Amino acid sequence: MTRAELISFIRNQQSFLCVGLDSDINKIPQHLLDEEDPIFSFNKHIIDATKEYCVAYKPNIAFYESRGIAGWESLRKTLEYIPKSHFTIADAKRGDIGNTSAMYAETFFQTYPFHSVTVAPYMGKDSVQPFLDWKDKWTILLALTSNSGADDFEQLETVSGKPVFEHVLRTASSWSSSEQLMFVAGATRVEELQKLRSIVPEYFLLIPGVGAQGGNLQEVIEASITEDIGILVNASRSILYASSGLDFADAARNEAMVMQEQMAKYLR
Amino acid sequence: MTRAELISFIRNQQSFLCVGLDSDINKIPQHLLDEEDPIFSFNKHIIDATKEYCVAYKPNIAFYESRGIAGWESLRKTLEYIPKSHFTIADAKRGDIGNTSAMYAETFFQTYPFHSVTVAPYMGKDSVQPFLDWKDKWTILLALTSNSGADDFEQLETVSGKPVFEHVLRTASSWSSSEQLMFVAGATRVEELQKLRSIVPEYFLLIPGVGAQGGNLQEVIEASITEDIGILVNASRSILYASSGLDFADAARNEAMVMQEQMAKYLR
Repeated sequence: MTRAELISFIRNQQSFLCVGLDSDINKIPQHLLDEEDPIFSFNKHIIDATKEYCVAYKPNIAFYESRGIAGWESLRKTLEYIPKSHFTIADAKRGDIGNTSAMYAETFFQTYPFHSVTVAPYMGKDSVQPFLDWKDKWTILLALTSNSGADDFEQLETVSGKPVFEHVLRTASSWSSSEQLMFVAGATRVEELQKLRSIVPEYFLLIPGVGAQGGNLQEVIEASITEDIGILVNASRSILYASSGLDFADAARNEAMVMQEQMAKYLR
Repeated sequence: MTRAELISFIRNQQSFLCVGLDSDINKIPQHLLDEEDPIFSFNKHIIDATKEYCVAYKPNIAFYESRGIAGWESLRKTLEYIPKSHFTIADAKRGDIGNTSAMYAETFFQTYPFHSVTVAPYMGKDSVQPFLDWKDKWTILLALTSNSGADDFEQLETVSGKPVFEHVLRTASSWSSSEQLMFVAGATRVEELQKLRSIVPEYFLLIPGVGAQGGNLQEVIEASITEDIGILVNASRSILYASSGLDFADAARNEAMVMQEQMAKYLR
């Protein structure tokens, strides 16, 4: 999916919501546990309920791989079930030396044909390049994350006076264009989100941390939206686990709809 | 496996060699492609040929997951085949927010019961803690890697005058003891290896980059070995692909033996 196609889909949907499929066997409604593939059944209901209100789905790979082969099967079926119109993100946070990153790229661009994958920047350019070599796919690089640990190294002040995450943004944006590179930008730090946006004005930002992690949607949008929209705002737990009962899909729909309505105000 | 048990096994084997199982379907000998599970067959021969000369095996997870379910099956069989005496490392370089890292820890400590897993530090303490919560398992944190991209962010000078990787070492060594935390330290930079050793004198270092990546074994050992040994030196491609013919296992044995003999000099 090209940048132009993504923007156009966002305008049509009146939404830049990404639904994070952090589907946890210990949290999904009890009655689904009798199904043959409870995680896939759960995702199917969530996708059916939310697809009108979002533009992207982001399976969190840890939740699938921890279940071994059964989990990878749930992932494959989920990826196939996501409507072709929607942008898909493998939230995998991979990254290694070149020949190994090439294998990770193959996993999430070919074996499981996602549109994009999240990548960790620590090991530098040659660990990211093999993902960027897939010209019709997207690399979504971690910049500033939404967790408390972001203070440990991402926020570390460098000799230039800028924190490490700013160097990641400036350096990595020289590696590839906004046509195939995005950045992860945590929503729990609105001032930093503004700063981050000013450093990479043309790049799409994937913004997690709204909802269960505490980010305020309106503030986040106002700190980061551009003329080309330029943001995908992710919510996972606040949608998936809006209810633990038989009505979980309706509750998820309502959560997604409320977010979509707030987003639509900025898209008219 | 405890630190004391690992040290004792190293002394018994007269080796601190780790064999990296970066088993690539495109590089293994042609004649194995007729086998039911060529990757497992390859690993089986490599393990049989090298187990006398090494103390650890390190499957590189990218090479397995890129093959989908077949790859995870090869990984499971390989892990079961590795002798119980040997230390096992899932080279996965995972790391994410807490609830997600907990799932990754489950993958490599329970679903696939490795002794240890490699973890990326970028997201800070709460992304690493869920691995450390497994008290009888090892977390091997990236510090300084062996690739050229290490210059981009790992070597970035911070306001204190120290590079980022030094902060990772100093900060992370306050999170856990040398009984369950190790660091990855690339072998292609011997001066930095010395410096790194002086910062974390008690911690084991996993040292990749000897062999195909260019690091010199003798220099590496002299820069990093301690009274408690404190190092695992990894070789992957130089052993696995020492020959592409029918004699690949013998060639791998010879490569491992040559390394073990050099190591033994420092263990007498």
